Amino acid sequence: MADVSTSMRLKLPVVCFILEIILIILFGALVQYDYETDAKEWHNQSHNDYENDFYFRYPSFQDVHVMIFIGFGFLMTFLQKYGFGSVGFNFLIAAFSLQWATLMQGFFHGMHGGKIHVGVESMINADFCTGSVLISFGAVLGKTSPIQLLTMAMFEVTLFAVNEFILLSLLGTRDAGGSMTIHTFGAYFGLMVTRILYRPHLDKSKHRNSSVYHSDLFAMIGTIYLWMFWPSFNSAITAHGDDQHRTALNTYYSLAACTLATYGMSAVTSHDGKLDMVHIQNAALAGGVAVGTAGEMMLTPFGSMIVGFLAGIISVLGFKFLSPILESKLKIQDTCGVHNLHGMPGVLGAIVGAVTAALATMDVYGKGMEDVFPAVADGSIDASKQGGVQALSLAITLGIALLGGLIVGFILKLPVFGTPPDTLCFEDGVYWEVPESEAPHEAQLTTVRTEETEKLSS
Amino acid sequence: MADVSTSMRLKLPVVCFILEIILIILFGALVQYDYETDAKEWHNQSHNDYENDFYFRYPSFQDVHVMIFIGFGFLMTFLQKYGFGSVGFNFLIAAFSLQWATLMQGFFHGMHGGKIHVGVESMINADFCTGSVLISFGAVLGKTSPIQLLTMAMFEVTLFAVNEFILLSLLGTRDAGGSMTIHTFGAYFGLMVTRILYRPHLDKSKHRNSSVYHSDLFAMIGTIYLWMFWPSFNSAITAHGDDQHRTALNTYYSLAACTLATYGMSAVTSHDGKLDMVHIQNAALAGGVAVGTAGEMMLTPFGSMIVGFLAGIISVLGFKFLSPILESKLKIQDTCGVHNLHGMPGVLGAIVGAVTAALATMDVYGKGMEDVFPAVADGSIDASKQGGVQALSLAITLGIALLGGLIVGFILKLPVFGTPPDTLCFEDGVYWEVPESEAPHEAQLTTVRTEETEKLSS
Amino acid sequence: MADVSTSMRLKLPVVCFILEIILIILFGALVQYDYETDAKEWHNQSHNDYENDFYFRYPSFQDVHVMIFIGFGFLMTFLQKYGFGSVGFNFLIAAFSLQWATLMQGFFHGMHGGKIHVGVESMINADFCTGSVLISFGAVLGKTSPIQLLTMAMFEVTLFAVNEFILLSLLGTRDAGGSMTIHTFGAYFGLMVTRILYRPHLDKSKHRNSSVYHSDLFAMIGTIYLWMFWPSFNSAITAHGDDQHRTALNTYYSLAACTLATYGMSAVTSHDGKLDMVHIQNAALAGGVAVGTAGEMMLTPFGSMIVGFLAGIISVLGFKFLSPILESKLKIQDTCGVHNLHGMPGVLGAIVGAVTAALATMDVYGKGMEDVFPAVADGSIDASKQGGVQALSLAITLGIALLGGLIVGFILKLPVFGTPPDTLCFEDGVYWEVPESEAPHEAQLTTVRTEETEKLSS
Repeated sequence: MADVSTSMRLKLPVVCFILEIILIILFGALVQYDYETDAKEWHNQSHNDYENDFYFRYPSFQDVHVMIFIGFGFLMTFLQKYGFGSVGFNFLIAAFSLQWATLMQGFFHGMHGGKIHVGVESMINADFCTGSVLISFGAVLGKTSPIQLLTMAMFEVTLFAVNEFILLSLLGTRDAGGSMTIHTFGAYFGLMVTRILYRPHLDKSKHRNSSVYHSDLFAMIGTIYLWMFWPSFNSAITAHGDDQHRTALNTYYSLAACTLATYGMSAVTSHDGKLDMVHIQNAALAGGVAVGTAGEMMLTPFGSMIVGFLAGIISVLGFKFLSPILESKLKIQDTCGVHNLHGMPGVLGAIVGAVTAALATMDVYGKGMEDVFPAVADGSIDASKQGGVQALSLAITLGIALLGGLIVGFILKLPVFGTPPDTLCFEDGVYWEVPESEAPHEAQLTTVRTEETEKLSS
Repeated sequence: MADVSTSMRLKLPVVCFILEIILIILFGALVQYDYETDAKEWHNQSHNDYENDFYFRYPSFQDVHVMIFIGFGFLMTFLQKYGFGSVGFNFLIAAFSLQWATLMQGFFHGMHGGKIHVGVESMINADFCTGSVLISFGAVLGKTSPIQLLTMAMFEVTLFAVNEFILLSLLGTRDAGGSMTIHTFGAYFGLMVTRILYRPHLDKSKHRNSSVYHSDLFAMIGTIYLWMFWPSFNSAITAHGDDQHRTALNTYYSLAACTLATYGMSAVTSHDGKLDMVHIQNAALAGGVAVGTAGEMMLTPFGSMIVGFLAGIISVLGFKFLSPILESKLKIQDTCGVHNLHGMPGVLGAIVGAVTAALATMDVYGKGMEDVFPAVADGSIDASKQGGVQALSLAITLGIALLGGLIVGFILKLPVFGTPPDTLCFEDGVYWEVPESEAPHEAQLTTVRTEETEKLSS
Repeated sequence: MADVSTSMRLKLPVVCFILEIILIILFGALVQYDYETDAKEWHNQSHNDYENDFYFRYPSFQDVHVMIFIGFGFLMTFLQKYGFGSVGFNFLIAAFSLQWATLMQGFFHGMHGGKIHVGVESMINADFCTGSVLISFGAVLGKTSPIQLLTMAMFEVTLFAVNEFILLSLLGTRDAGGSMTIHTFGAYFGLMVTRILYRPHLDKSKHRNSSVYHSDLFAMIGTIYLWMFWPSFNSAITAHGDDQHRTALNTYYSLAACTLATYGMSAVTSHDGKLDMVHIQNAALAGGVAVGTAGEMMLTPFGSMIVGFLAGIISVLGFKFLSPILESKLKIQDTCGVHNLHGMPGVLGAIVGAVTAALATMDVYGKGMEDVFPAVADGSIDASKQGGVQALSLAITLGIALLGGLIVGFILKLPVFGTPPDTLCFEDGVYWEVPESEAPHEAQLTTVRTEETEKLSS
């Protein structure tokens, strides 16, 4: 598996070092502590320590952090020979993306006297943007080199910040949990990239594009963490008080309903009526995606459960019927099925958000309207208009994601990235020293072992 | 392994969909946001955001959530061929139970104008009730179909809510961490169910009723998470301030002492003086169970450590000497040994709670008496009476659990649930598509592989 | 593998029981609830519940707890046949150490009327001290018996408390995240112990001193949890408000920069330009260690990233070039490479802390100076003097660690501890019942299986 063309000996160090040095220089020039993290600023005024935003948001931040690094990382370890790449490249591109996102989001969402202010809210936002990149990573998993992934991340973070700026700052769209900005954007961007990177001969690696018993258990670690902490994800940056509380509650119910729908649909669609781990690992999470926009609204537990229930059904049907068509007809090779977990549920979430916004009344929200729909509360637009803005935002997100994915996909086709050959996709040995490589008679042994292991591993 | 009688193709979807639709309808009719999650209600009065109960309890809720889904789920993956069922069925029945528990607990513990109010405290309580169901799941692990488990959960949640209502609302029992309501109830209910479902020929699946090297490591993920977060579990719904703080502290010390007792007892009882993973995975947790009632009281670190130390000793002795007798004499096939982890330590915890309550004095509690023993503080009963109530509560809990388990056990014997045959217990292949089934020559290969894997897997 | 000399049948129970009984007696005599956990004390004065320190620190405590038990425990499961020992002995010695540390730290850091007061801060401090012991465990991993480890923990905790007392209480050193007190101390203590316990014939167990595919994935669970929660670790006991907030932020950036440096360095130093899991698992964490002292200071995100970047580079270089030299020339067999993850980055962190302290000005810190450098704020010393104190503290820490390790190493050489023979290092079967031992024909089968497994496991 040692191939000159895929060697990262020079390419990866050069890319990592240049990117990090640029980041350090830009942080030195542009970034400073915000009011709540700066020793002088915070002590300049009188307030109680428990008013510091740290205590309102840091526990949620850590839950989001676990979703990004453990959740996404381990969810993708389901492939039998790609556990190092799943967790390891997830780690690398997330560590890069959160730094780059801090700059891009800071730049677009308002500088303070030429400086970007950072604190727990910027940390959460950077992790959110990183989540979007990791969704796209799921679409191209196993078919890309680490420097391709870093390049993709660089462009995607930038486009994410542009789209987020248009939605949240220019249009006044509400999308606290990111049904549009994170999930729809990340999914369709990634799907377009993988479409452009289409490999007609990917079947040469088909035997590795599946799970083994223990890899499915590692993947369940990712699934369960994502599922548990999704209430924290959707509520992490909503307004303090009832808003964070309500968003977490709505998401909890949506996910619970989604899980029952997923198990039911998995049994009915699988052969012999047996449950399929692919559905459980992914579709059970669609309920979190689908209340990403409406979760902070007065969706009610009842509404949340309906949304989650529908999301689970749609997602399993997508895995069963749509993914094979996308691959055979549209040439979209979506390794993790992100279209089913993030794409369709993200669009559903955007629509649910638009409808829920359009139906908002002072009678239901009272003075809480200011937190959820400030433009409606101050009378500058009415609720139905807010609903229209939400719907428009979905269209804009899809447009930027697809166009961005198209351009970035072509950039990633340049023959300089050390991309793996069709015969060595879904294979850690291309970029990682795997334990066997320590032994003598490497080449022959590896072949023999691989065959035997495939026969025997359960 | 494809057997018509165990096929879930129609049964599981029908059950999942009917249950979830009923839940959604009942939530639509009965459930509404509580004061702290409702936009209008919360903003109707003036208070500071940090007074919202979300900030007092949500971090604890997430720790409890991790215990329910990762802790219980992975603890049960110790079986060599039942990892999917352990984590996956745990996931399914927990997602159902928390919704059903919200309704049942809301119904019994006080409606507000015909409505059930939900917020972070109801989320924690629902997760607690779910924990009880998962304890019972441990007793029948590997011998039941998913619809049997859902049926059991439906009845058990209802009975749990009845018992909890009698104890907490009618009698004024204190049981914040659920030594009685959760652990004793879940354990003896499950033990009675598994007694009724006794399989005389279970030895046909005996070769799968044990661990392999990696399955024991997966199980340790569950153990360690349960151990770490038990202080959050016991303190999650105690009163704000010193009560939450003290409960977490007591639990922390109890668990630490329990761990040393467990290692010591494991070495002295195992053959060759080697440590037994079954003990470490389970008995080290008994300290958390055993301070579930007294944890919020002024038990002192000293008292907590004594309780934990005893719990660890009892639990290992149970695994070593009592479990074999329960199986051979009383025909109780307790897959996970829940009697040793939840049953006996739960009873111990109830007794410790009764004694500690009976010894409570104003001299020790001061004005804090109102939080811990409100009936003693307002003079309606004295401390020794409170101790008596606590002891009575244990008897009631045991009665309802055993009687309930008896009835539910017979219901689960009805020949409609697609239960696995004696030859295919502890086997994921009955209800799950396991990775090998994708290969050609399925039947033969599976046999060969299984044998070889058993020989080789370490 | 059943050898009389390594049998723990009597030794381990005796040690565990004696230690725990002594702990219980000392807790009974010396420990009481602090002001914020005592029912009477807390209710004696008027304050709001959210002012209780529980709400400021408990979420951080739980993150630290996860690092200690999951982070350290699973990080060390990378060895192919030592997963039980890694997680299991980590669990045992941590459960002991946190109790012993509560006493030792309470004794040295100030008694209250002859009593040690406990609460969430003492829990965090005890976990911190435990972390130091676990670092030393990493150096001797696989080569020691559990009672050797408990003995080491007993002495190391004591010396840790002495060193911490000299630094924090006598000298006024700042070291919130423990670059010196935890990492430098734990690493050099452990390195000296492993030097004294040098095994000339350790190559007889060399074939087990490496990873297999799944063990590397388990280890990544440990790595990622340590990485994610390090911001909580460094900020857990800093002052409320901006200090906790800033420390978490600085650590977050340091780790992100460190990760990119680690991937770059790993590719450039490994053969064929492939990434080495040893580097990713360890060096990516060096950024957290290296801001352990300066993290609470006004290091700026820019400064934090530079420190993290350097730490990653140093750490990978250490694994590649220094560790082999330490082993061959200095006879230091450092199983986990703690010198590269905790030793050198700890020293770097101490130096960064000294320089950052020396540069502190009122212009930058304002009234916040009181939180970070109280002695500078009240004018009793100037900033450059504080820098000098920091540098001196590093020297003292190194001295106590090396001298302490020397003495404790010789104690651990006494032939009473049931230490494993050179041929059975890195082997769970010495102290644990491993699953295979249940089968008939144990001895022969084990040999055959081991060989086959080694050939086949991937």
